[in-house]
Amino acid sequence: MPHAFPKLFEPFTINSMTLPNRLVLPAMVTRLSGEDGFVNQDITDRYVRFAKGEVGLIVVEAMAVHSAKSGPLLRICDESFKPGLTDLARKIHDTSPSKVIPQIIHFLKIARSGWRQKIEDLSPADIKLIVEQYGQAALRARECGYDGIELHMAHAYTLSSFLSKKNKRPDDFGGKSLQHRLRVPLMAVSEVRKMVGDEFPIGVRFLGEECIKGGYTTAESAIIALRMAQAGVDYISLSAGGKFEDAIHKEGEVLYPYTGYSGDRCMPPMEYPDGYNLHMAEAARAQLRKHGLNTPVIATGKISTPELAEEILQNDRADLIGMARALLADPDLPKKARVGDEEKIVKCIYWNICKALDETFHQVVCGLWPKADLHAPYSEDTVPPIWQSADPLKVLVRTGSVRLNWQKAADNEAVMGYEIWRSEDGGAQFRHIYSVTVSMYTDNLAVAGNHYQYYLRAYDIAGNKSAPSNIISVDLPVDVVIPELTVVP
Amino acid sequence: MPHAFPKLFEPFTINSMTLPNRLVLPAMVTRLSGEDGFVNQDITDRYVRFAKGEVGLIVVEAMAVHSAKSGPLLRICDESFKPGLTDLARKIHDTSPSKVIPQIIHFLKIARSGWRQKIEDLSPADIKLIVEQYGQAALRARECGYDGIELHMAHAYTLSSFLSKKNKRPDDFGGKSLQHRLRVPLMAVSEVRKMVGDEFPIGVRFLGEECIKGGYTTAESAIIALRMAQAGVDYISLSAGGKFEDAIHKEGEVLYPYTGYSGDRCMPPMEYPDGYNLHMAEAARAQLRKHGLNTPVIATGKISTPELAEEILQNDRADLIGMARALLADPDLPKKARVGDEEKIVKCIYWNICKALDETFHQVVCGLWPKADLHAPYSEDTVPPIWQSADPLKVLVRTGSVRLNWQKAADNEAVMGYEIWRSEDGGAQFRHIYSVTVSMYTDNLAVAGNHYQYYLRAYDIAGNKSAPSNIISVDLPVDVVIPELTVVP
Repeated sequence: MPHAFPKLFEPFTINSMTLPNRLVLPAMVTRLSGEDGFVNQDITDRYVRFAKGEVGLIVVEAMAVHSAKSGPLLRICDESFKPGLTDLARKIHDTSPSKVIPQIIHFLKIARSGWRQKIEDLSPADIKLIVEQYGQAALRARECGYDGIELHMAHAYTLSSFLSKKNKRPDDFGGKSLQHRLRVPLMAVSEVRKMVGDEFPIGVRFLGEECIKGGYTTAESAIIALRMAQAGVDYISLSAGGKFEDAIHKEGEVLYPYTGYSGDRCMPPMEYPDGYNLHMAEAARAQLRKHGLNTPVIATGKISTPELAEEILQNDRADLIGMARALLADPDLPKKARVGDEEKIVKCIYWNICKALDETFHQVVCGLWPKADLHAPYSEDTVPPIWQSADPLKVLVRTGSVRLNWQKAADNEAVMGYEIWRSEDGGAQFRHIYSVTVSMYTDNLAVAGNHYQYYLRAYDIAGNKSAPSNIISVDLPVDVVIPELTVVP
Repeated sequence: MPHAFPKLFEPFTINSMTLPNRLVLPAMVTRLSGEDGFVNQDITDRYVRFAKGEVGLIVVEAMAVHSAKSGPLLRICDESFKPGLTDLARKIHDTSPSKVIPQIIHFLKIARSGWRQKIEDLSPADIKLIVEQYGQAALRARECGYDGIELHMAHAYTLSSFLSKKNKRPDDFGGKSLQHRLRVPLMAVSEVRKMVGDEFPIGVRFLGEECIKGGYTTAESAIIALRMAQAGVDYISLSAGGKFEDAIHKEGEVLYPYTGYSGDRCMPPMEYPDGYNLHMAEAARAQLRKHGLNTPVIATGKISTPELAEEILQNDRADLIGMARALLADPDLPKKARVGDEEKIVKCIYWNICKALDETFHQVVCGLWPKADLHAPYSEDTVPPIWQSADPLKVLVRTGSVRLNWQKAADNEAVMGYEIWRSEDGGAQFRHIYSVTVSMYTDNLAVAGNHYQYYLRAYDIAGNKSAPSNIISVDLPVDVVIPELTVVP
């Protein structure tokens, strides 16, 4: 047991499943499957790569419980998908102690014309079918050798739309009453439990906040968590936003639910503070504990480092830590943290190339990976990159920015990128502010009247870091800020 | 000095101004002025009423530094407005120790066609003029006897648009560089300081978060706070959202910037937890203190009670507490808290009738006030309402809600409303969940599987509360939640 992250590497038991650590890969779109929905080699490679990194729990990307048309999306809607799914589970289990759970989804129809089916259009028979499809899919997952099942109740999809404060159904499945909005999601949980038995872990993922006008917030998501736990759910995983209501419509394309503000809140980009959605997990967990329920809560949303993860666990703010983009950037993060090699982690910088690729219907890769690589690179090399001169780093100060550029480092294998470290006001405390794969960077948040210092560390594919480069000092004098305004006549 | 709120009632000095307590009325639209922009009787009555309640600092609603056309809006754009403004300041000062500061605003043109002028359209000469107009307006405020000046840099207006991450100017007044985005706002601060002298308090109000896609967050607002403080600003007041970018356009009307999600974040409605925007004040304050600056920070956003205000101050999360809607509901909140009568406070319930009135271009009143009243009622009566029977409260439990109705209470003057108190799971801890002016209420957040208790307290115009009504117990059994689904063939 390492001293640095004692809580993070405590095994954690959820019903009949014991995770080797408290790190969770939440379901993340890859666009690696074909439109046929079968598991293919790319999908297999992606998830085996995560298993190799030893994350405690892998939640495989959403797979449809029904056969409706969509883009590339895994399916679990009939028996024909079971061989591929069985093979995937087995290969993951063969790789490491990581546990694996599929996320199952139902979504409504959508058209390029802008029309989309809504939950208000569903008949009781439609609802009954959806509930049964969840049950059948969960049973298949168990039969395929998965360790549990996760019901997708988040973002813009069917069960989430029932939970939503925008659910406008006039009957007992919607309207202003939270109990009515909970009904169909709870029916799905009940049906799934009936099909998989008491000992099979069932998780649910829903929104801590909808992040749209008139949407629900933690005041209601905490009650949703309570009802889910009372209904026998084994874990609660929280997301945020990702709704149709504020999606940006592109001419001739189907509306995509992560393109508006609520999409930013779902996958907070670099502009957001770390752990931005943590208050949602805290609110749900507090509500559960107040009612004497120990159901674990998974926190997600720009939790970037094992240090932050450990701190969250130590302070009892969540039970498990979800990391999607951070594990995409470096699937070996868990293993590196476990063996004390956390300095070798390739740090996600949340510039959301992955999100942009998804939104433009491309296969999802990380912008920090070597160009053309479909999966995170791997190397057991231990030799770090070296600088090729004593002062590779140069600076150009403009009125509104600090531009850094540098002479490339060398490596026995390949330099993968450069970390930019900065200190403010002469402090000795340098902080990693960004990473790039090129050899220049512009700091647009350096402001006049303050003193900055910068250095770089080059890193290779294994994450070995070079020694710091030369340190550059920059003073931005106040008088640069307010020039005499020259008025052009 | 009362024991309940020792910190809240500590006097607080900002440059040459000493506030009697740490409660601040942030600038709030009233729509009480005429389109001519002169102070009138309604405006005077509104602000004198706040002074009577003894709030530490009154920030008078935004007044324009220029003469552009708009709806009802105060003006400070030429000498003709000084007599009215002088009279207003004098009457406020004559009423109580409250201090008073006008908020000054510049906004760009907007048309019913949907067209709106943008900061990208402004020439250097336009910018110079705006900066000078801020200086002139601030000087007028000082000459009119105000205790300081606040520059409006929040929401959808000119200076905020410069600070915004959506500022697309290609020159040194915008673009990606935060320093360039800060330039015009800092020029305005510098010009104002030049005009009013070193000892006149200057405050700025800007957004802690823009709450729109691609908008800035605390990562940048903390730096904005730092630069403002370094530029000699005397206090920082934070708001959130209220942008044009996500405003909902109504056919034939000019776009109004509080109608989208960012409008909810500006004035968080009842669905939001108390103190929802507090992290913004904390981030700004931490940045200032890290740089050795003691500039005070005003936190705002659904800070509903003196208890929460005191807790925020005790925990050093902010220096001053802004309450807009809570003081609209009961301008006497500060005085009641000071003398130990906090139980008599008429509690804002954040149903945002005030916000809806503003958005539909009506005079802003509180939905809890007696119908037809233009200002908060006042009474020195001390006799509380009484119930007219032993069990006035009745309940009707439906599958999705708990409906309460009751026999009205009686009062020697007039019953103003009813507080609804609820406990969960048999706990003795009842919590005020809502207030109404009618005699019925539906609880849409009561869910099956849980046990609830309710009672009422009637209150009169002075805020005297009746004894609790009879307690109603409600059990919502779990089996109500998941009925056998009847499929209509």
